[in-house]
Amino acid sequence: MRFTPRERLSARASAVRRELGNRGLDTLVVTALPHLFYLLNLRASAGIAVVEREPPGLRLVIDFRYVEAVSRLRRQDVAPAELEVIQVESTYDETLCQLLRRRPAARVAVEADHLSVRRWTWLQQALETSLTPAVEIVERVRTIKDGHETRLLREAGRMLAAIVDPACRRARRGRTEVEVAKEVERLIEEAGFERPAFDSIVASGPNAALPHASPTGRTLVEGDLVILDFGGVHEGYCVDVSRTVSIGPPSPPAARLHRAVSDAQAAAMAAAAPGVLASEVDGAARTVLERYDLAHRFGHGTGHGLGIEVHELPRVGRRRTGSAEQEDMALAPGMVFTIEPGVYVPELGGVRIEDDVLMTGAGIEVLTPACRRLIDTDGPACTKVDGR
Amino acid sequence: MRFTPRERLSARASAVRRELGNRGLDTLVVTALPHLFYLLNLRASAGIAVVEREPPGLRLVIDFRYVEAVSRLRRQDVAPAELEVIQVESTYDETLCQLLRRRPAARVAVEADHLSVRRWTWLQQALETSLTPAVEIVERVRTIKDGHETRLLREAGRMLAAIVDPACRRARRGRTEVEVAKEVERLIEEAGFERPAFDSIVASGPNAALPHASPTGRTLVEGDLVILDFGGVHEGYCVDVSRTVSIGPPSPPAARLHRAVSDAQAAAMAAAAPGVLASEVDGAARTVLERYDLAHRFGHGTGHGLGIEVHELPRVGRRRTGSAEQEDMALAPGMVFTIEPGVYVPELGGVRIEDDVLMTGAGIEVLTPACRRLIDTDGPACTKVDGR
Repeated sequence: MRFTPRERLSARASAVRRELGNRGLDTLVVTALPHLFYLLNLRASAGIAVVEREPPGLRLVIDFRYVEAVSRLRRQDVAPAELEVIQVESTYDETLCQLLRRRPAARVAVEADHLSVRRWTWLQQALETSLTPAVEIVERVRTIKDGHETRLLREAGRMLAAIVDPACRRARRGRTEVEVAKEVERLIEEAGFERPAFDSIVASGPNAALPHASPTGRTLVEGDLVILDFGGVHEGYCVDVSRTVSIGPPSPPAARLHRAVSDAQAAAMAAAAPGVLASEVDGAARTVLERYDLAHRFGHGTGHGLGIEVHELPRVGRRRTGSAEQEDMALAPGMVFTIEPGVYVPELGGVRIEDDVLMTGAGIEVLTPACRRLIDTDGPACTKVDGR
Repeated sequence: MRFTPRERLSARASAVRRELGNRGLDTLVVTALPHLFYLLNLRASAGIAVVEREPPGLRLVIDFRYVEAVSRLRRQDVAPAELEVIQVESTYDETLCQLLRRRPAARVAVEADHLSVRRWTWLQQALETSLTPAVEIVERVRTIKDGHETRLLREAGRMLAAIVDPACRRARRGRTEVEVAKEVERLIEEAGFERPAFDSIVASGPNAALPHASPTGRTLVEGDLVILDFGGVHEGYCVDVSRTVSIGPPSPPAARLHRAVSDAQAAAMAAAAPGVLASEVDGAARTVLERYDLAHRFGHGTGHGLGIEVHELPRVGRRRTGSAEQEDMALAPGMVFTIEPGVYVPELGGVRIEDDVLMTGAGIEVLTPACRRLIDTDGPACTKVDGR
């Protein structure tokens, strides 16, 4: 494991404290496990961090299973310098209450996206105080990847790009979707990823019209469009790519679908720049698909942030109201996200093309440079990485 | 996929409605995705079900990605007869509000364990009403497995038991934990599971003293105790087993550790009977470990329910207060859970032995019958399935 250096961890915690200050808060109770990895290098299935603004504090409530893991991080000098560890005695919630009672006047926020109504209710009763539900504090800090993260994501992107053509070649007549998916996952493992980032999607023929189909026992046949969507985790960071394959030469309508999506992806990439709203990138893809009269076949958003999680901020989609979900964001250097328009037509199947990009001051850098053509399984290998 | 027959789905929804009646509620908003699989055969990464008590209703709010998947369930006659599908137009939360506004007088409960504070706050504001936070309605129905589920879990248990000895044999001198874990996962796949139930644990030597260690690059050496903890998913149902291996003949203290855990597991199995509290099963294991003066080295609970999720109710652990977490439960026929005491001693390593059991009217049935001896990698293959 290549851990985040401790100075980076300090910088991340400081960024969280600044955001607490901006919101008039003293303390953040961190219950999202990916945030423990981000702030502490700790991979655990339980744990609560408490970030205090002034004086700067960082406490970790952890049960006995992870005490030794934290000691190791300390011995390797990759735990935050200011970390105080508190071992759970009875339960997490009770231990957290004891900790929060030490500073009764503090304005304490919880992560409203990562705390259940059940625990929220219990904690407020036990503390006899009200907690502030805060959203997207650590998440927004996490959108701007630091040097450690961009290094790992660039590596991961190259590793994934290298298996795009081999993975597409695994989609062949007579194989089932499940068989192809297993071979793709073997390629992911052989490429050096610690694991797939999610269950790989291999969706063929009519199944390709289901944007999130699980692989089935369906056998690939002549004329199928096949969507492959797969990714890997490298040192804790996720990358994610999709390509579409034609079993044998594509029909003219299938080729047109692919051209539409390819044009939409290119337009979205061209639109992405610092200061541009994520929804404008989505709009660029949607405008192209409107010209092809396919916008109504594009039901999902254009992309999503990725990093420690395979779906994180920014959301690259239409602006929306009427929801407790995330709002629009302006793109900024250091953001990493996917650009993945897709169209799904019941009679024809579907096409999705997805790449991961890093926003830099000078525009986007494609992290997954691999052939984006509609790969014909009877045709030659694809080597032109930015070819369309 | 062997779907749950539609009559079973109806029985499950009826059980949920009875529980709503017991609690004086009219409607349950189901936001836990495993509950969608349980009630609707639907595997989706998003979706909200709304169960209505009187007249009996079952509605599903779903986005366009899953509309076709639900249509297929209907065509295959494995969707509930009373199902009404509502496609999301703008957002899930807005669509849910529109649906709930149809019956303004209904006493509506949400799943307090499966709804974030953010969405809870938003929904109540949008609806201008208060929602009841309910806990463990569907979860408690799910504790009593029906015939479809026990059939799949028995099959899955036999499939897993068959690879216990081969998996233990993969732990050999000179291999790393990561290498062994990958081989174990290959065995899981070859056994016919759709995927591992969780990231397999291979924890050797000092790492075996960390109850939930991820596999590392550490090489297995003479005298190590190695804990293997792995599981598989079969037709949507999880099984989970742990065994401990000695690299070469075990030292007397290592053998004693194993004997203590083995005795503790046997005592817990003997204590498990219908009507007995889950905490009493935990107590039986703990009492044995006290006799060995090892109870303080047993930091986790004795077991957990399993089924659609690898951790579900009942929790088999100490009674606890001071927590928003689950309470004690009386064991009942149809429950499926693990019995997995473990001890972790920094200087010696650790031992855990885990099996899955089905509670029947006549006592427990072990679903994972496989050798439970301390397997010496230099010794003969273990064939005595209930041997100690």
